[in-house]
Amino acid sequence: MIFRQLVDIETSTYSYLLGCERTHRAVLIDPVASELDVYINLLQSLNLKLIYTLETHVHADHITGSGLLREKLGSKSVLHRDAGALCADLLVTDGVLLQVGDLELEVRHTPGHTSGCVSYVMADRVFTGDSLLINGSGRTDFQQGDAGKLYDSIINKLFSLPADTLVYPGHDYQGNTVSSIKQEMGKNPRLGHGKSREEFIAIMQELKLAYPKFIDKALPANQSCGLVAE
Amino acid sequence: MIFRQLVDIETSTYSYLLGCERTHRAVLIDPVASELDVYINLLQSLNLKLIYTLETHVHADHITGSGLLREKLGSKSVLHRDAGALCADLLVTDGVLLQVGDLELEVRHTPGHTSGCVSYVMADRVFTGDSLLINGSGRTDFQQGDAGKLYDSIINKLFSLPADTLVYPGHDYQGNTVSSIKQEMGKNPRLGHGKSREEFIAIMQELKLAYPKFIDKALPANQSCGLVAE
Ligand SMILES: [Fe+2]
Ligand SMILES: [Fe+2]
Repeated sequence: MIFRQLVDIETSTYSYLLGCERTHRAVLIDPVASELDVYINLLQSLNLKLIYTLETHVHADHITGSGLLREKLGSKSVLHRDAGALCADLLVTDGVLLQVGDLELEVRHTPGHTSGCVSYVMADRVFTGDSLLINGSGRTDFQQGDAGKLYDSIINKLFSLPADTLVYPGHDYQGNTVSSIKQEMGKNPRLGHGKSREEFIAIMQELKLAYPKFIDKALPANQSCGLVAE
Repeated sequence: MIFRQLVDIETSTYSYLLGCERTHRAVLIDPVASELDVYINLLQSLNLKLIYTLETHVHADHITGSGLLREKLGSKSVLHRDAGALCADLLVTDGVLLQVGDLELEVRHTPGHTSGCVSYVMADRVFTGDSLLINGSGRTDFQQGDAGKLYDSIINKLFSLPADTLVYPGHDYQGNTVSSIKQEMGKNPRLGHGKSREEFIAIMQELKLAYPKFIDKALPANQSCGLVAE
């Protein structure tokens, strides 16, 4: 498998390119619109055809590249059925298996950061979007956020994965690129050490985060797969 | 590829089992609830795991087996985004590629019989549901039916396939099991010989078909993947 973790420095967003060497088919997880040329050049240099853009959720902090990639490369945009983005070409739900060449990804519905959040599970790794972050979690004060639901999602849908499963998040603001289920179960300060649901909810309530600076622009754009009406 | 055409005699409905011999994964196209045991026995005897049930549309003449198969086997129900069936696990749109093992099916949106009708295209065959029938077409007087749209779908999305593509329909009432794009372009009495859109619309308007005897029961059931509320 071809695997590239890509970072958008401006918003500390991680995107992921996964390619099948046998069939030359690929997916991009959470592509960022401003990085379009990077993706197109990378796909071309690796001789890969982009089949799907897999979104973990409707983002509030950057504009997705899924709509532009569809226009340029004919790829299809994948989102959860509850994400509220009618622009998507393929709407998925919990437990759906997606195959692209020899790549296999299972959709896990992990609501809490948003109601339409999913994680994409492979044999040895999981792409958690803004549900589970390294030493943290997505915020739960916008976009139908719900700390209790996020706790349930992480405990039941992610911490139930094999302990050595690699965790690739949607963001990191400290320069971490990868963790594992075992590491997060151990030392994640919000959920590790067997923290209770009540403790997690209290921690999330006390965060008092600033209003997301980009949300008013990003949300409506991303509900149209990043294609802003002129 | 393992391929079985299955018939529900009571409603003259064709269902199709497609299996990948390498991965032992399978799909069923338009399964019928009353044939559940047939499918389960067949899958078992062929050592196949059912991944998706692919619906060509929300049927008005029989109850789908997709919900029961999901309950029994964990398969996921696939429908077009416009089919108005929120029970579906995977909502697709025109041009989406679905892979199951080595099986590859491309979704073609072919509205007209219903607004959410699709055909599933493979390299050598197409499953046309009630859009294109052998020597006929689906009726267009119910379920957002629209003869003009159906004409456009058949001409643009189906008759543009390679001429030797096999046509496997959702029903046949004369005992035909398979046709080809070439045969239908030639001798389909409603659309063959280059019949015009106006001619087709006139033919459909003059059909004066009886009210579908099963529609009042089948439609609400199929909007819930065949699982009727008790
Ligand atoms: Fe987010
Ligand atoms: Fe029908």
